[in-house]
Amino acid sequence: MTVRRERALSIARRLGADGVLAAEPSSVTWLTGFEADIGSGPSPFALPPLAVVTPDGPPILVVSEDGALAAPPDCEVSVYAGFTIGELDLVGSASRALRAAADGRTLATEPAALSSALARGLRLVDASVELLSARAVKDLDEIELLRAAVELCDIGQAHARAQAQAGVLEIELWTLLRGAMELDAGGRIPVLADLASGPRTAETGGPPGPRTFAEGDLVICDLVPRLKGYWGDSCSTLAVGEPAASARSKHRAALEALERGIEAVRPGVGADSLDKLMREGLDYPHHSGHGLGTSWHEEPRIVPGGRTRLEPGMVLALEPGVYDDAEGVRLEQVVLVTEDGCTILSNHSLEL
Amino acid sequence: MTVRRERALSIARRLGADGVLAAEPSSVTWLTGFEADIGSGPSPFALPPLAVVTPDGPPILVVSEDGALAAPPDCEVSVYAGFTIGELDLVGSASRALRAAADGRTLATEPAALSSALARGLRLVDASVELLSARAVKDLDEIELLRAAVELCDIGQAHARAQAQAGVLEIELWTLLRGAMELDAGGRIPVLADLASGPRTAETGGPPGPRTFAEGDLVICDLVPRLKGYWGDSCSTLAVGEPAASARSKHRAALEALERGIEAVRPGVGADSLDKLMREGLDYPHHSGHGLGTSWHEEPRIVPGGRTRLEPGMVLALEPGVYDDAEGVRLEQVVLVTEDGCTILSNHSLEL
Repeated sequence: MTVRRERALSIARRLGADGVLAAEPSSVTWLTGFEADIGSGPSPFALPPLAVVTPDGPPILVVSEDGALAAPPDCEVSVYAGFTIGELDLVGSASRALRAAADGRTLATEPAALSSALARGLRLVDASVELLSARAVKDLDEIELLRAAVELCDIGQAHARAQAQAGVLEIELWTLLRGAMELDAGGRIPVLADLASGPRTAETGGPPGPRTFAEGDLVICDLVPRLKGYWGDSCSTLAVGEPAASARSKHRAALEALERGIEAVRPGVGADSLDKLMREGLDYPHHSGHGLGTSWHEEPRIVPGGRTRLEPGMVLALEPGVYDDAEGVRLEQVVLVTEDGCTILSNHSLEL
Repeated sequence: MTVRRERALSIARRLGADGVLAAEPSSVTWLTGFEADIGSGPSPFALPPLAVVTPDGPPILVVSEDGALAAPPDCEVSVYAGFTIGELDLVGSASRALRAAADGRTLATEPAALSSALARGLRLVDASVELLSARAVKDLDEIELLRAAVELCDIGQAHARAQAQAGVLEIELWTLLRGAMELDAGGRIPVLADLASGPRTAETGGPPGPRTFAEGDLVICDLVPRLKGYWGDSCSTLAVGEPAASARSKHRAALEALERGIEAVRPGVGADSLDKLMREGLDYPHHSGHGLGTSWHEEPRIVPGGRTRLEPGMVLALEPGVYDDAEGVRLEQVVLVTEDGCTILSNHSLEL
């Protein structure tokens, strides 16, 4: 964590600022470990958490009273009234808490995520691009957290595979597999997901709905759970009953593209060329992969024209797909870039 | 919907603006029906949706390409590139889309929710308080949506009651009851919830965790699902096996407070006096109730000092509780204020 704070502060210095104001919830987690509540939208009792990092002391979380209860022990807090039976003045009280934390400094921030009501009167410079880029290389503690999040994906994937049968609804399978993940996590976790069967696999996915699985269906199951602030990712494509020859052939092509990509991952490889290599002979409409961390899609983006070069410590989700008008297959694994290649963190079955 | 847009525009006029820029996702839903994605936090592919409402034509949603696919038919869209394999420049492209929609007008907005990166260069006035207040009285279409959301609560509550048994984990019961709600909804829905048993009931609640229900436990089950942009709300307190006399007495006091409140609801009653009436002889640390709509806690807040007077069309969740150091009970129903009293929308069991 200290390393990350140093990295963020050196970005601030280069931009002429005396500190960092993390405004993206993902950057707040990255710098402090504080995990923002995201399941039920904006809260009437709090603004999104902010973190002020300076060279002069511990990071200061700017959070409501409720948020303060969850503050990591190595952080200070600048607190405002949140869940209260008194009058609610979030903007006024959070502004005061933020100004106290900023203490007149010029701060390097992320303006897209910063409320226009809180930005007023602060001295700010835009460090969005630099901070996003700094987040791409993971520290050891982050790699452990990502491993745990990917293990949760394995659990969800195993349950999907065991229970995707003809007659079951997408939304029923969803309940089973998310239940298994939350039971393992010991509580509720946010999960972004595709769970789409039949014709919707041709459209690359979608959320689980009321469709019933039928013999011969393909099911795209892309599970993205957040655990302790870090996101796992994974995709398998299952066949309900016996898959058609067309599905087998798509599956083979997707698996080859994934293996080609993983084989090529090593420090120095450009995102652009990794994308090109994986995409060869295929024309999926999405990225070939992306970084994974405190957000579910970050640098390095493995896309045409992607300029990032891989470095040890980057964690990538690679996810080539093969789609036509009738059906689609996508396979995804998470890898950690090492000194001379990569380690595969995912452990779910890639079989059809 | 047209009525709500007129109401919002008249607020704008009073504040010297030519239109409204809804920035709170809940206000975007209120004015357009567009439902923001909230389950997985800020998206790397979109900024939160915005809506520009003017007297000169249909509302304009400022959304990413993905968002545009979900735009209601009576809205225009000002679109920016979202889920793309090209370069991501959300701030630049969303700014252009917003400026095109604003078209030089002065707009009445909600600065807390508006990104500081998008506010630059726009002529804005703060209408947060006025818009929140206007949202308190519901139109008929909103009341139907709230009814449906409350029916979903009833389903969740019935499953909680049927399946809360000794030996079951909180997180297992949670999976069962959310699964039942999502099956009925035909897909995933956001649900805010307390599902806390035993000692945690004394703390008013908390999310489901790995605790196992034991004979004699109380379970606070407060379910707040969002359906088509509108939030339901409900709370019951269940006993696993035979409840202690202390629990029965708390339950009686909470039920009496709830009945007292419901009996008193009618147009003209002040939020303050309704709160006082319900709170009499009890000392729960939270509000006595709150409005319900496109956000899960809005005006009128039923709190000490609450200045709003009830009007027909307001929808309130009333939720008195009785807590001591050992255990707690809370009961909640949703009511619609009518011309001469109220109609109870909730249909779940309030028994212990």
